[in-house]
Amino acid sequence: MSTGKYREIHLASYPEQAPGPENFRMVERDIPEPAEGQALLRQIWMSVDPYMRGRMRAGGRSYAEPFALDEPLKGGAVGRVVKSRNPKLPVGAYAVGMNGGWREYYLSDGSDLQIVDPSAAPLSAYLGALGMPGLTAWHGVANILKPEAGETVLVSAAAGAVGSIVCQLAKRRGARVVGVAGGEEKRRWLEDEAGIDAAIDYKAAGDGLSKAVAAAAPEGVDAVFENVGGAQLEAALDRINDFGRIALCGLISVYNDPRAPTGPRNFINILTRRVRLQGFIITDHWGEYPRFIAEVAPLVKAGEIALRETIYEGLERAPEAFLGLFSGANTGKAVVRLCEDEAPVD
Amino acid sequence: MSTGKYREIHLASYPEQAPGPENFRMVERDIPEPAEGQALLRQIWMSVDPYMRGRMRAGGRSYAEPFALDEPLKGGAVGRVVKSRNPKLPVGAYAVGMNGGWREYYLSDGSDLQIVDPSAAPLSAYLGALGMPGLTAWHGVANILKPEAGETVLVSAAAGAVGSIVCQLAKRRGARVVGVAGGEEKRRWLEDEAGIDAAIDYKAAGDGLSKAVAAAAPEGVDAVFENVGGAQLEAALDRINDFGRIALCGLISVYNDPRAPTGPRNFINILTRRVRLQGFIITDHWGEYPRFIAEVAPLVKAGEIALRETIYEGLERAPEAFLGLFSGANTGKAVVRLCEDEAPVD
Repeated sequence: MSTGKYREIHLASYPEQAPGPENFRMVERDIPEPAEGQALLRQIWMSVDPYMRGRMRAGGRSYAEPFALDEPLKGGAVGRVVKSRNPKLPVGAYAVGMNGGWREYYLSDGSDLQIVDPSAAPLSAYLGALGMPGLTAWHGVANILKPEAGETVLVSAAAGAVGSIVCQLAKRRGARVVGVAGGEEKRRWLEDEAGIDAAIDYKAAGDGLSKAVAAAAPEGVDAVFENVGGAQLEAALDRINDFGRIALCGLISVYNDPRAPTGPRNFINILTRRVRLQGFIITDHWGEYPRFIAEVAPLVKAGEIALRETIYEGLERAPEAFLGLFSGANTGKAVVRLCEDEAPVD
Repeated sequence: MSTGKYREIHLASYPEQAPGPENFRMVERDIPEPAEGQALLRQIWMSVDPYMRGRMRAGGRSYAEPFALDEPLKGGAVGRVVKSRNPKLPVGAYAVGMNGGWREYYLSDGSDLQIVDPSAAPLSAYLGALGMPGLTAWHGVANILKPEAGETVLVSAAAGAVGSIVCQLAKRRGARVVGVAGGEEKRRWLEDEAGIDAAIDYKAAGDGLSKAVAAAAPEGVDAVFENVGGAQLEAALDRINDFGRIALCGLISVYNDPRAPTGPRNFINILTRRVRLQGFIITDHWGEYPRFIAEVAPLVKAGEIALRETIYEGLERAPEAFLGLFSGANTGKAVVRLCEDEAPVD
């Protein structure tokens, strides 16, 4: 292999509210040599995900360690082994892990990596439909919401990495699926490609979001997969049926302002309609990965799940990809291509 | 029996925010004669409960029918059969039901009444520890929170009709129980008579409620029985542990202002700590009554549950008793004595 330099992105400062390019810093490093038991990967795809915002916070109680300043950020990535002193990671193998993102090369002892089959699905799918977002969607549908045929499921951020899979898994279970997303293009993708029953552009709906949900869900909403919070959660609570269930997966509308009130104004509906609300974090449920893969991998391989990606080219665009999660710039799974897979292994 | 008049209380108008005496009207009626299949009861005790506020609202979606204007209010009551043409309700029998409150006499076909044994418990207990509030407490503890020995349970409105039973049932399961109530007298009753581990006077705590909960629950809170909402729910969410459970039984702090925002400002903690929040209404769970009675009636009979009542004398004080639910004037179960049980049956 070529010796030389590679690039990684460090967290330069903790964002106060909305993050910006100034919070990131590109750093050049020498490509390391694997020690005994290690392998060196050239990373091909890296993931940006909303949960990362929660780790860009000094101290405070959270479910994950804060990212350290002046060190490389972490995140999901798929790479290819280019040098190895670990027989479980042979040169040429592809592997995915949750730590090796935000960098062009990654050294691992293999304990945080899983070999993947590039013929079973596009490599980037291991960061999306077959990765953490897919598992998140599947867990919420299969283990929390459990929609039955004929029920109505409402999904926010429905055109996102998680929401788009939620929509399709719920649809396959026979539910009526209503998705909320930002913009006409996402709305149409949901109806035309993802095949859900009705999609709502919350930007066009404005203050009429609750009415738009009512029109799209004439029998009310039985189950909600919530990624956003704020007005979208309020619309869901306006329309939720008695004994409804809510899987609370994210509150992206409030991540950037920790002082903003986060509770829905119609919280009382949780009481009067006897709603069950379950917050969850997918890292608690890695043990479900085999069940998830058994169900979803064949669907992906058979092309029965519409996959949508927003691709950013080059590590230098990773901060922009991340910021796009909050501005709504991304549709489907946002990924960054760090190199062409065709690059020679050595 | 003496023929003549009796009194009942009608709803004169729907309260806009906090209800007041002007919303009620005393009306005199002729004591009716039972038709075939009916029995006439002289009511002895009637109940006032927070849920009644929710029915004092015109239209709107709610879990219970609104009370009609210019008709008698309804609610729980215990009475004694004074005249009967129904063999299942013999003269002299005592019976409890959910409709015959707010009036001195009540005519029933028996379908909404249950005979009770006056030797098993004080008659008024059938409106409290052995009635709807007791079932509510038991359901939340036994079926939703399921506290285990060594866990910490936080209870709001802990000196109230429901909360005081929650505290004692959770304590019997081996939990550490922390109660929140208003005023030093309630606080002391909870610690000295109800026997819980720590009680907090939220009025004395002021803005320091969350810190007071932290001090009383040094290992955090595993389960919350929520009756109040507002700052008390926020303090609970501040201190709840990962995977905590919340039984959402009431939000009395917001019932009187439907325009007030009801969601806790730290709602995001439901997500980050993976909390399960379950709203419930006890009328969905009457089927649990036999299991509840099997567990709780022997404890009441044996004097192992501290019962506390605030007694108002005479139907004319029923509105005051009801208003006391919102002002915090009542400790334990608030009941109104409509007549002496010793009054002759005929």
